[in-house]
Amino acid sequence: MDAVSRIERTLSTSLDRVDSTAGPPRLAAAMRHAVFPRGARIRPRLCLAVAAACGEDDPAAADGAAAAIEFMHCASLVHDDLPCFDNADTRRGRLSVHRAFGEPLAVLAGDALIVLSFQTIAWGAARSPSRLMPLVLHLAAATGMPFGIAAGQAWESEPTIDMGQYQRAKTGALFAAATVLGAAAAGSEAATWRELGERLGEAYQVADDIADVLSGKDELGKPTGQDAAHGRPNAALVLGVDGAMRHLTQLAEAAVAAIPDCPGAAALKSLTLSEARRLLPKDMALRAA
Amino acid sequence: MDAVSRIERTLSTSLDRVDSTAGPPRLAAAMRHAVFPRGARIRPRLCLAVAAACGEDDPAAADGAAAAIEFMHCASLVHDDLPCFDNADTRRGRLSVHRAFGEPLAVLAGDALIVLSFQTIAWGAARSPSRLMPLVLHLAAATGMPFGIAAGQAWESEPTIDMGQYQRAKTGALFAAATVLGAAAAGSEAATWRELGERLGEAYQVADDIADVLSGKDELGKPTGQDAAHGRPNAALVLGVDGAMRHLTQLAEAAVAAIPDCPGAAALKSLTLSEARRLLPKDMALRAA
Repeated sequence: MDAVSRIERTLSTSLDRVDSTAGPPRLAAAMRHAVFPRGARIRPRLCLAVAAACGEDDPAAADGAAAAIEFMHCASLVHDDLPCFDNADTRRGRLSVHRAFGEPLAVLAGDALIVLSFQTIAWGAARSPSRLMPLVLHLAAATGMPFGIAAGQAWESEPTIDMGQYQRAKTGALFAAATVLGAAAAGSEAATWRELGERLGEAYQVADDIADVLSGKDELGKPTGQDAAHGRPNAALVLGVDGAMRHLTQLAEAAVAAIPDCPGAAALKSLTLSEARRLLPKDMALRAA
Repeated sequence: MDAVSRIERTLSTSLDRVDSTAGPPRLAAAMRHAVFPRGARIRPRLCLAVAAACGEDDPAAADGAAAAIEFMHCASLVHDDLPCFDNADTRRGRLSVHRAFGEPLAVLAGDALIVLSFQTIAWGAARSPSRLMPLVLHLAAATGMPFGIAAGQAWESEPTIDMGQYQRAKTGALFAAATVLGAAAAGSEAATWRELGERLGEAYQVADDIADVLSGKDELGKPTGQDAAHGRPNAALVLGVDGAMRHLTQLAEAAVAAIPDCPGAAALKSLTLSEARRLLPKDMALRAA
């Protein structure tokens, strides 16, 4: 079964397990709305790729870790879209959760998805219970205080913002968790896998910055976008689009160099480079020419 | 060390572990504001009492479970106080988290406390890692879908409300978790401990109903309160204050009868009865005379 099918199956199975007819049906619907239809699933695919490279001996543990990361990512999007943060009306081309179900159920859907994330990682580890401790602790570290995604989002509410901590926590933490949890799910030493995730998280941020700048180009005729409009830091504004593309290539090469010795290192290196190319906007080659 | 001191120490230690100078300081302050100064700590005290009755062989595991329950309770209060739910200005005699720190940090403080709850239960189980699986799964079940506190709160957003499920989930779930997790932390069979927690959760709800009715008596001269004003179900409105008191006594007796055979059963029975009396408003004897 390919990685995306495994991820979708695990997400569905976990949601089904907590969707009892005796529970509140609109909360269940709001949670599904947050998770399906799927986005790129880039973090859980990375998690499964690392588990495979480590010689995955318990696919259910890796599936649980991958789905847990995606549930956490979806929870963060639901809360980030709330009126008190981005006040986003749409997400992935349709209504955001708070616009479709109201603000109370959006808050609760995020909460329940955070809980489901821990539940899913525990269910996945049923045959490898000794791996649960590192799995829970790495998942929590990527999510909470002081360096997880909640901490990353909180920097926007501080009087002075530490930009490095902000980006490492808001974007990098779940990428690092993807590689670290993939290794932990396979029973491998997890710490050596952090750098790969961190470099890919940085590459993802730079690709996002490039896309933001190019998205503004069409309408305004100059290299700007939402980040310029809101005074947010953007690598493509600082380095230019060509400079940002070179930086992204360097980050992808650094990611490849950071892959530890493992049974599937060669395949993972090849996959890492092709994924880095996928990060670019689809018409990047044309526009950057 | 007495139970309350153990609970306060574990809550403080956990918060200290995630409060790095490199993290966002206002989120850390919002989390502490939600947890201190302490409320009655009734759920973690119940958890420690059950662990002791089971012949607690790993106090750190019990401490972790008790603190995890209290973090989850505090997280739910922070989110329930948000403008989109109760819009409460105060909590425990001072500003609610969203009034003191703003809505974004209140959402994130709740999220980060949910994460810290799982982290704390994992830290506590360091010397008994085989107990982590049931601890995580029972904690998640008490918190998420379909029967946990998030599900309970979500019933308020459903077009038709299942009152039984609503109260069992919103109030009962964390009481049942307190007894179940106390037993699981001590390495005992957890399922037999659920009924004690459920009966005490019902008793707590009835005591709350009595307090609500009596709170209205002073000002209006008739047995009413916030529940009557908002059309919420209230046992003391249905049964009268004297009838509700008799019901509370029956629930306390049912709780005592539900205590499984264990090394500390006698002491726990005595504690359960004295705790049930503490549930009543301080001037209950006088007013009900």
